[in-house]
Amino acid sequence: MNRFGNLFQVMVYGESHQKAIGVVVDGVPAGIQFDYDLIKSDLDKRRPGAVGTTPRIEKDEFEVTSGIFNGYTTGSPIHIMIENKDVQSKDYSNLVYHPRPGHADFVAYKKYHGFNDYRGGGRFSGRVTAALVAAGSIAKMFLPFKFTQQLIQIGTLTDLSKMDEYLEKIGNDKDSVGGIVEITVKDIPVGLGEPFFQKIESVLGSMLFSIPAVKGVAFGVGFDGVNMLGSAFNDVILDDTGKTKTNNSGGISGGITNGNDLVIKVFVKPTSSIRKPQETFNRKSKETQTLEIQGRHDVAIVRRVGIVLENAVAIGLADLYLINKAYE
Amino acid sequence: MNRFGNLFQVMVYGESHQKAIGVVVDGVPAGIQFDYDLIKSDLDKRRPGAVGTTPRIEKDEFEVTSGIFNGYTTGSPIHIMIENKDVQSKDYSNLVYHPRPGHADFVAYKKYHGFNDYRGGGRFSGRVTAALVAAGSIAKMFLPFKFTQQLIQIGTLTDLSKMDEYLEKIGNDKDSVGGIVEITVKDIPVGLGEPFFQKIESVLGSMLFSIPAVKGVAFGVGFDGVNMLGSAFNDVILDDTGKTKTNNSGGISGGITNGNDLVIKVFVKPTSSIRKPQETFNRKSKETQTLEIQGRHDVAIVRRVGIVLENAVAIGLADLYLINKAYE
Amino acid sequence: MNRFGNLFQVMVYGESHQKAIGVVVDGVPAGIQFDYDLIKSDLDKRRPGAVGTTPRIEKDEFEVTSGIFNGYTTGSPIHIMIENKDVQSKDYSNLVYHPRPGHADFVAYKKYHGFNDYRGGGRFSGRVTAALVAAGSIAKMFLPFKFTQQLIQIGTLTDLSKMDEYLEKIGNDKDSVGGIVEITVKDIPVGLGEPFFQKIESVLGSMLFSIPAVKGVAFGVGFDGVNMLGSAFNDVILDDTGKTKTNNSGGISGGITNGNDLVIKVFVKPTSSIRKPQETFNRKSKETQTLEIQGRHDVAIVRRVGIVLENAVAIGLADLYLINKAYE
Amino acid sequence: MNRFGNLFQVMVYGESHQKAIGVVVDGVPAGIQFDYDLIKSDLDKRRPGAVGTTPRIEKDEFEVTSGIFNGYTTGSPIHIMIENKDVQSKDYSNLVYHPRPGHADFVAYKKYHGFNDYRGGGRFSGRVTAALVAAGSIAKMFLPFKFTQQLIQIGTLTDLSKMDEYLEKIGNDKDSVGGIVEITVKDIPVGLGEPFFQKIESVLGSMLFSIPAVKGVAFGVGFDGVNMLGSAFNDVILDDTGKTKTNNSGGISGGITNGNDLVIKVFVKPTSSIRKPQETFNRKSKETQTLEIQGRHDVAIVRRVGIVLENAVAIGLADLYLINKAYE
Repeated sequence: MNRFGNLFQVMVYGESHQKAIGVVVDGVPAGIQFDYDLIKSDLDKRRPGAVGTTPRIEKDEFEVTSGIFNGYTTGSPIHIMIENKDVQSKDYSNLVYHPRPGHADFVAYKKYHGFNDYRGGGRFSGRVTAALVAAGSIAKMFLPFKFTQQLIQIGTLTDLSKMDEYLEKIGNDKDSVGGIVEITVKDIPVGLGEPFFQKIESVLGSMLFSIPAVKGVAFGVGFDGVNMLGSAFNDVILDDTGKTKTNNSGGISGGITNGNDLVIKVFVKPTSSIRKPQETFNRKSKETQTLEIQGRHDVAIVRRVGIVLENAVAIGLADLYLINKAYE
Repeated sequence: MNRFGNLFQVMVYGESHQKAIGVVVDGVPAGIQFDYDLIKSDLDKRRPGAVGTTPRIEKDEFEVTSGIFNGYTTGSPIHIMIENKDVQSKDYSNLVYHPRPGHADFVAYKKYHGFNDYRGGGRFSGRVTAALVAAGSIAKMFLPFKFTQQLIQIGTLTDLSKMDEYLEKIGNDKDSVGGIVEITVKDIPVGLGEPFFQKIESVLGSMLFSIPAVKGVAFGVGFDGVNMLGSAFNDVILDDTGKTKTNNSGGISGGITNGNDLVIKVFVKPTSSIRKPQETFNRKSKETQTLEIQGRHDVAIVRRVGIVLENAVAIGLADLYLINKAYE
Repeated sequence: MNRFGNLFQVMVYGESHQKAIGVVVDGVPAGIQFDYDLIKSDLDKRRPGAVGTTPRIEKDEFEVTSGIFNGYTTGSPIHIMIENKDVQSKDYSNLVYHPRPGHADFVAYKKYHGFNDYRGGGRFSGRVTAALVAAGSIAKMFLPFKFTQQLIQIGTLTDLSKMDEYLEKIGNDKDSVGGIVEITVKDIPVGLGEPFFQKIESVLGSMLFSIPAVKGVAFGVGFDGVNMLGSAFNDVILDDTGKTKTNNSGGISGGITNGNDLVIKVFVKPTSSIRKPQETFNRKSKETQTLEIQGRHDVAIVRRVGIVLENAVAIGLADLYLINKAYE
Repeated sequence: MNRFGNLFQVMVYGESHQKAIGVVVDGVPAGIQFDYDLIKSDLDKRRPGAVGTTPRIEKDEFEVTSGIFNGYTTGSPIHIMIENKDVQSKDYSNLVYHPRPGHADFVAYKKYHGFNDYRGGGRFSGRVTAALVAAGSIAKMFLPFKFTQQLIQIGTLTDLSKMDEYLEKIGNDKDSVGGIVEITVKDIPVGLGEPFFQKIESVLGSMLFSIPAVKGVAFGVGFDGVNMLGSAFNDVILDDTGKTKTNNSGGISGGITNGNDLVIKVFVKPTSSIRKPQETFNRKSKETQTLEIQGRHDVAIVRRVGIVLENAVAIGLADLYLINKAYE
């Protein structure tokens, strides 16, 4: 169940501490100039470095083993592999007995009958999103749309000029915060999306919720729209291109793109790994015990998840774009 | 693209003003006692009646044409058809030229090159959700979970004892409002959901966003969690069943059910059809013109969408439940 | 698992003796003139009448409940329903205990834990193929290809001018025969099909093998090609349209259409229901007992399966045709 | 479109002369002991060596980068990569202009607008089947069935003790032959397969036809059954396990396994690459010209395709086996 898409198909594999993670991307049109630099720069955006991000630094050197010939896509599946190199060989077996709150340790043990690779979160690690980023870069190579994303709130902070000191304080308190990212896609035509089960919101929602720590997805004004009357919420159409006066619906009508900017809001929960001691159940002692999480973690994973969200959106749109082409 | 599911598969058909809407539900286990009354009572919950709901009243008489024998499911696809009877034969052709704000009239015309059935919103009508409700009732016939849903906010109102007068006033102003519905699923085991692309949030998000007017989906505390620190957000595990002290994550860890109640928040936008005049583009005159929408509409569609959301969740969980069974 | 296709999607429902059978066809382009007569004439071709065919005669009156507006497809799913009318209300319960050789009675009982509708073969009845025929008619409404099919062998008979007397004799002996049907598709462009898992042969093979009684599928010269050397088997290309000197590969190279006629051979087994007594296991007595099958059956189902095969091919090609359009 | 399966999902990537081929296998149950030796020995069976097989010898060293922990499957996707090492760097560009008869050179050029990797057949090379073999080995690690396969005819030869000299003669004539392989699966339970579109024959037919050079698939007695009467063809049931007196239907009733041995016949066409000169169209000169194929090729690819077919069957059955488990 690790695949996505009808025509533009993505299959992601890998666990945090095994040899490699990677992705197979199928359904890419032949003849697209392959932009290695875009993948590299997108992966770099995901890498840590800023205040509040983890000191585990993978160089994310990726290898493309198939689907490219003379610098162009061949129409065959493209396989990209990223080796796991900066893996610390410490003992993670404690997680099996003393599952971390907010993490998948407990459910993974139950679901996989104890055979899951628990090291570094295994399959549930945010590490796997590097592969998703690469797949999204490929989507962006042929989509004629313009993607941007920005953090609009982090914890209680909306004036983001004060972010560094805010995160530093929270980090010093051994705590973490979440945030809200807004993704915008410009130059998108009227007509992408399908009326049932493949609405823009369904496809992008499904895709975005696949990303670890995403707990809310909304379009346009989002949940704030609950305070608006219909007469204010409705986006009045101004001309034959479909341009609207407001964009409360985030560029979508009836699940179909309406020609205005696509606007998506994503809530990313506070990083689950905190250095503050937590009282949680220990499966060995059968008691609640103090857990202190070591390791290298982000105070605010939301600070570097933006590119993951952006590229996830690109993957979803690539599928709908190709489906739409079949019916033009 | 009107189908959903891997094992529990649902295909929905129909348009608002054609002969019928319906659904084919495949992958239902054989030997389930078929509960006609549940379908009937679920469909009744969706029907209007209360203040703020449309006076178009379909009796929603459904017919089951296959998949049931001697009162039990046979393991074959179940087809349920609901005829469209209370259809008013007025002239809808104006919608082609003067598309309603907030509706899909404009995008449908473009996407389907003018061949869409525009009467009553056609394929984009909320009417089609009756079929989805019936499919969800079938899911609930074999899922050993307990589903509930409640409206937690309507417009700016959270004290819902005052709802009738609130909606009456808005209706008198020829306007509309949206709201937030919370769905809860109890008695759900640990382990449903798949770590990538089929996370609980992905599957339910995809499903819920298929429903007209849904513009936001969040789990547990949802977007409000942005104001919480990790130490407060993390749900501490208390015992070997996975029970947690808080349930900020809505019963989901790493995209997998963790044994606590599943909690989902859905934002439903204000009804697009309002009786207040709106200035919007007319494709014939090539000018912005006043549009006055007649017809029978809900002031707050959110008031009767709860059962649709509940049953949509049931459909998504049925698929994940069956997938999980294959790996037990 | 009763669905087919990526873009042109077909979901078939129904059992032989329940209220109706039917099909939902999704992914049909908008704006196709809907040809009711084609469906009618295709369904008529499947109906019995000739020597060697069953006397159960359904009029196959079909109803289109959605997806058509003003005579054209709307781009929404098309639902076609065919009621089961000529159903004889005799007692079929004997089949549960004394399963018919060659039929699915025994496996259906086991697979569905005794809940299957066994009347008239239930879900396994050839009756269900009427729905498939209707779906194929829709495919042919927009595919610019020319379909034909012919019986090339029936039992040991290849001189088919003697078919009527041949079948009459076999019918008098209370026995049955199978045959080979050849389907040809002309005016098909270069490039349909995908190199792995969606090769022309894979898609059409999968589709054709869904039809009851089909036990062999081959392309071009088929199994007879085993007697040829490569130098004779290879189809030499003559010009830039891809036209070849011979067509041993049946118009397919590497799983992709090569511009020549698509040629498919299908082996249909002898009708399983024969009036001759058979010794077979009785689940009640736990002994082998004589079974005499009553009812109305074809001596040679192959005589009227041609249109089912032709239309099954059309469905498969419709999907590949639309996929191909997305990449043109 | 390079993926297969509903629960047991396989995605195959790679081209003959690029860095690697590989496969991602998803839906493997957790806790299966991973048998590296089985993959190795299956890959070895596919490798050349015998008379009539190509002298291109890849060692097929495979690397498992994910999905295995402490020797057991983790429940996450398993990625296996096989590097292309014995690649001869000769100039293949002639194939673009002078397409080889029987190969996909011509259609690939058209389909991919000239961007396909034509070296060694690229995506259409039999080389890619090594990845499929590895995926099939994984399926066999948890399926409790017994797989065997044997060549039953090669060219006109059915007495296979004379095969070596037969192939040597054909090779000396610079020609090639095809053959028929029979695959048998024992110890298979009643009930695998789904009645429409996912019948045993549909799933295995689809899978087997994905393999280059396969042009015919039949079950049980196959096309020879055309000469039999129904009374002889019908497999009479002997006891409550479903055991039948004959097995003309190849262990399948109504598309569902019936408890008897599954028997499949596959026709593999003569190897397309022959050293004998062929007159075929040259796209540059616009004329028919003599083509002499150099390179290393099999006289009878059928001689080593058996393990590919066997493992393809295993993949298809793995999916149906898991689906069946969900409904037990």
